[in-house]
Amino acid sequence: MRPRRVVILGAGFAGIACAKRLSKFDGEVLIVDRTNHHLFQPLLYQVATAGLSGSDIAQPIRTVLRGQRNAHVHMSSVTAIDLATRTITFSFRDHKIEYDWLVIALGVQTNYFGNDHWAKHALGLKSLADANLVRDRMLGAFERAENLIDSPAERIAQTTIVVIGGGATGVEMAGACIELARRALRPEYRRANLADVTVHLVDSGSRLLSTFDETLSARAKADLEAMGVTVHLNTRVGEVGDGYVIMTKSGDATSVVSPQAPQRIEAATIIWAAGVCAPPLTGTLGVPLDRAGRIIVDVNGRVGTQREVFAAGDIAACSDARGKLVPGVAQGAMQLGDHIGKLILREERTRTQIGGASPARKGFTYFDKGSMATIGRSKAVAEIGSFKTGGILAWVLWLAVHLIFLVDLRSKLTVLLKWSAAYLFYRPSGRLIGERTST
Amino acid sequence: MRPRRVVILGAGFAGIACAKRLSKFDGEVLIVDRTNHHLFQPLLYQVATAGLSGSDIAQPIRTVLRGQRNAHVHMSSVTAIDLATRTITFSFRDHKIEYDWLVIALGVQTNYFGNDHWAKHALGLKSLADANLVRDRMLGAFERAENLIDSPAERIAQTTIVVIGGGATGVEMAGACIELARRALRPEYRRANLADVTVHLVDSGSRLLSTFDETLSARAKADLEAMGVTVHLNTRVGEVGDGYVIMTKSGDATSVVSPQAPQRIEAATIIWAAGVCAPPLTGTLGVPLDRAGRIIVDVNGRVGTQREVFAAGDIAACSDARGKLVPGVAQGAMQLGDHIGKLILREERTRTQIGGASPARKGFTYFDKGSMATIGRSKAVAEIGSFKTGGILAWVLWLAVHLIFLVDLRSKLTVLLKWSAAYLFYRPSGRLIGERTST
Repeated sequence: MRPRRVVILGAGFAGIACAKRLSKFDGEVLIVDRTNHHLFQPLLYQVATAGLSGSDIAQPIRTVLRGQRNAHVHMSSVTAIDLATRTITFSFRDHKIEYDWLVIALGVQTNYFGNDHWAKHALGLKSLADANLVRDRMLGAFERAENLIDSPAERIAQTTIVVIGGGATGVEMAGACIELARRALRPEYRRANLADVTVHLVDSGSRLLSTFDETLSARAKADLEAMGVTVHLNTRVGEVGDGYVIMTKSGDATSVVSPQAPQRIEAATIIWAAGVCAPPLTGTLGVPLDRAGRIIVDVNGRVGTQREVFAAGDIAACSDARGKLVPGVAQGAMQLGDHIGKLILREERTRTQIGGASPARKGFTYFDKGSMATIGRSKAVAEIGSFKTGGILAWVLWLAVHLIFLVDLRSKLTVLLKWSAAYLFYRPSGRLIGERTST
Repeated sequence: MRPRRVVILGAGFAGIACAKRLSKFDGEVLIVDRTNHHLFQPLLYQVATAGLSGSDIAQPIRTVLRGQRNAHVHMSSVTAIDLATRTITFSFRDHKIEYDWLVIALGVQTNYFGNDHWAKHALGLKSLADANLVRDRMLGAFERAENLIDSPAERIAQTTIVVIGGGATGVEMAGACIELARRALRPEYRRANLADVTVHLVDSGSRLLSTFDETLSARAKADLEAMGVTVHLNTRVGEVGDGYVIMTKSGDATSVVSPQAPQRIEAATIIWAAGVCAPPLTGTLGVPLDRAGRIIVDVNGRVGTQREVFAAGDIAACSDARGKLVPGVAQGAMQLGDHIGKLILREERTRTQIGGASPARKGFTYFDKGSMATIGRSKAVAEIGSFKTGGILAWVLWLAVHLIFLVDLRSKLTVLLKWSAAYLFYRPSGRLIGERTST
């Protein structure tokens, strides 16, 4: 007889938290991911803006679970989930595996809202490959700008960046792009004047960081504008093409200072941080989904009517025991993943007792540790319960929290070292432009 | 009138040394490279074997020359060199530029000796892209091995590595591969037993490290064999295909212990470190070349009969003022590049004096600081003049020298940190497998 088996799909914050909680599971914990690494996504924008390298914020899943004897890692994409037969099919040779417990934690992908053909022009930012592509495109554009001394119009397009979406990712990207160009890189470009780099941040809503308190939204906007970012609120993107964005301002602008947006912006670098949706696989499960295709789960993360199937992390739409929506952030994913791990352990224990009945499930309570977004050097916003702050205090908090939560000591030290070098000498360390192989 | 201009093609050790020496050149120093970084090539094998990441051993050329006001950087491939009209043509929009002085330091590429179709099976190791590809292929093979529990023959092929070429690169690769698999990774793979990983090192000659003293060749072979590497001397590769190598043992084996090589080895990872040649561009110059297409230069690095054209680094075949061949190593490249920089400075100075005659050129003397190759943890060989050593002393020397020569402080500290983590905890830090973009 095969050992009891938990299959966890996805090695993000939810999947890893669940796997770790299951270290005492008497059987096999199989964690599946299409990459070989666990990514510390909150710092992904720093890889995209050349501040860090991929290996600073990603660890092999095998290393993360190195000490856990019951944990197995399978690098593969998932092609099918069959809840009726409790079977997962993988892309690697259509390999099939059965589960006793299933945790779906596959995360989300960039949502172009029906305009998937925009994807090659407006780059998403969900994986390390995405981040490397953004960095290559932006740094490549600056290189071309340096060579285009005789063509001012083209040079301007190469040094223009448009960031679409004013949530945390968009705000962090916009701030990091302009600092990279105007401060760190400027002394190294002799012909192109990188002080001329312009960054446009576009959002359809009336304020940035809509999940934060309004005072912090205003603060973020003011900080970004002081750094030179042009913020376009109440502005919708009508079209994205090769090297351009067409945007239209909606009627009811509530922001007083919203600048007049040009209709069409020529920009070599366009970044899409405007939305996410669940992978198409959720549509095959036959369970309730929300508008973005996320699996609607109960207060314990349970999927549909299956007692043994759960979802956690960004792919799950979960209201906790107090009716509060669990936000799509690392903390929400980790806490729900951990909760599911505990449930499985407890129910396995009763199962093995003779005549053990399934215990009642209590329901998960999300503990909000607060949220933060960094804007630039010595600038951030933070909201912890009713405590709200901006500027250098929020920034130091942000630094400390992110260093603490990085997975291992080597990453913490490397990132600390690189941040120090960047802070003291304006020397970002992740600036290699990827090349095709020489063969 | 345009300023006086030195064009340096290639930002390797020779190009950078020459550019730096020209910091007082009264005019423009234009350094051209197809990548945006200067690569510390002696540690490239560590990126290929997951010990380090690309950004640890490569710095943007702009950063290396940041403080040098007369230095300009142009990221582009070179498509043509016209010595008669003193013009270089670049791939970026067929842009042309004239030079007063030219230094060709483009390096070399992997030489498959007429079998270029082997390139996609037997991976070269000249650029960061090459190194990333080797790492992805080897780690990807180990992942597949982990999934192939039911197929022992396939699993063995996935955990077999063949390194072709027994020079310093081949020796370092073979040692690093077997240590990575058998020591660092083994505890993390539950199904595939990475203790079974086999590494074959193949060379057509009668000893490894043919440029070193014979005692060190023997030492390197003994050390590698003790680590588990199978060394095939006097063995020629007859064919390389998708996942296999066919080799034939030549008749006159001088080595007593050479093992009986199988005719055909199934191996998912094949690395080609057997030879290099100059890029095809040298054939268009109309100047004398050696068999590998390298430009034969005079004792000052001068190319053909042109007083203003030089070549340095691996692309140049140079015998120095004492008739000694300058070896294709970092020291040779740096010293000749620097010498050429000095020559240019001196001749520019006389040129600007009224009636200044071209001074006689003295000829370059290569100063041999010795050579080293690392084999594994606490194992290396070093030869400095008549001093020869192996084992831990050579290894410590190797570590110290490589740390000292890394370009900047941040790299030194990061690499030291990563080496320490790898040494103490067997935790190699560059293990991300590259993925295609998620879009």
